[in-house]
Amino acid sequence: MAATGARIEALVARHLDGAGNPVAGAMRYALAGGKCLRGFLVVESAALHGIGADAALPAAAAIECIHAYSLVHDDLPAMDDDHLRRGRPTVHRAWDEATAILAGDALQALAFELLAGADTPNALRLIATLARGAGVRGMVGGQAMDIAAEGAEVPLTLDEITRLQAGKTGALITWAAAAGARMAGADDRALVAYGDALGLAFQIADDLLDVEGDAAAAGKALRKDAAAGKATFVSLLGPAGARARAQALADAARLALLPYGNITDKLSELARFAITRKN
Amino acid sequence: MAATGARIEALVARHLDGAGNPVAGAMRYALAGGKCLRGFLVVESAALHGIGADAALPAAAAIECIHAYSLVHDDLPAMDDDHLRRGRPTVHRAWDEATAILAGDALQALAFELLAGADTPNALRLIATLARGAGVRGMVGGQAMDIAAEGAEVPLTLDEITRLQAGKTGALITWAAAAGARMAGADDRALVAYGDALGLAFQIADDLLDVEGDAAAAGKALRKDAAAGKATFVSLLGPAGARARAQALADAARLALLPYGNITDKLSELARFAITRKN
Repeated sequence: MAATGARIEALVARHLDGAGNPVAGAMRYALAGGKCLRGFLVVESAALHGIGADAALPAAAAIECIHAYSLVHDDLPAMDDDHLRRGRPTVHRAWDEATAILAGDALQALAFELLAGADTPNALRLIATLARGAGVRGMVGGQAMDIAAEGAEVPLTLDEITRLQAGKTGALITWAAAAGARMAGADDRALVAYGDALGLAFQIADDLLDVEGDAAAAGKALRKDAAAGKATFVSLLGPAGARARAQALADAARLALLPYGNITDKLSELARFAITRKN
Repeated sequence: MAATGARIEALVARHLDGAGNPVAGAMRYALAGGKCLRGFLVVESAALHGIGADAALPAAAAIECIHAYSLVHDDLPAMDDDHLRRGRPTVHRAWDEATAILAGDALQALAFELLAGADTPNALRLIATLARGAGVRGMVGGQAMDIAAEGAEVPLTLDEITRLQAGKTGALITWAAAAGARMAGADDRALVAYGDALGLAFQIADDLLDVEGDAAAAGKALRKDAAAGKATFVSLLGPAGARARAQALADAARLALLPYGNITDKLSELARFAITRKN
């Protein structure tokens, strides 16, 4: 994933070269140092459909721009008020709130510029699905539910948390997983099923890390959910139950790849990584 | 312009129907009650190129979504900290900051969803140019210059203000004016020239309104630039000089329409309106 990340950062740096304002610097900063899970999914799902890494790179960069913008805005004082991200100060701490808001806004625009400006196959379908997944019925909707839950008296149920996470983190992961099939104009159902299961497994692992993990390795503040009294997969299922659920979902993700035969080692391996990672 | 505005609001309401979270309500609120200048430009420039209002509507709605999102974010406490917009409380006053940030984010996503999801002719070119115009080299870049200027010791020069406004307000107005030619796959130079001149005339008129206008008619706080000691077209050129400059730009905008003969009454009239309006 690191190699894809470096290529994405270089592509975005070329796009921002000479933009000449502090927002461009904050955008590059926000994009750097992540796991690049979503970009990796785009490149590998494209490879499954015979599309090379060069052709898939703008779409991979686009999804990482959307993900980076969402982190910058979620970290703002009016949202989750986080000071640390990927082991470094969050954008509004390293610059200021206005720059963080603008850098997030410009990263979202850049995502669509990258998708529309390159020769990405079936770009319109990718743009329509990404815009929908990032919007009020997808990622933004999930974040809105998350914030509303913080002020609510009744904690969320397992069904509600599953729906919240399907929007907040699931929509972009599923988009990334399905991108290869959509670029190829092929049936995307197997990859959508893979992405849905992977995204949820990934989130449950995140909840487990929040409770059991090491803040230095995670590069961000932990135990925030428990301190806020928020319902999570771990608070509702218990650590052992959550672990079993994550394992079942990772298995389901790998099973969803069966139509691709045994050429899917990397995506299969990723499902394993999603639930064993330390950050 | 009011008829186009009503059709845009109805189209967006259909898109948001059943989204079921407070952010969707804030998005509709943010979109309502504006002049709909940009949407009107899209519909009328499309008409010049033989494209009907139905086919142009998603693009008109898209540019109004981008414009509405930019106002919601610009009004935030960390940015311009405005309490009144279009005669009503700003979104972060009517809801809260988190909802305002999310509503702006989702409005930007919706703009690209609208452009990619309908049968808009030459949609990819529209998306690429809109994303670029809205981004760090366009609108966001202009807003970043504006915020940086507030804290600076040396006020901006006329050249710098012109560049700032070309990004902050000009990029979207030019995109809207050129949209018709781009949808038709035609030469967009005349409409780009018209949009560039119109956008600047519009902004100088805005600066004059800020100094001479009536806050009740404008529906927002006035005299903020002078109070903040910010350089504007009026502070640098004087009211009479600014008025003359706006008039010259409105004339230039109308001259740019010459290649279209005398079928451009509405766009020509708009250039007149841009410098005589009261809000």
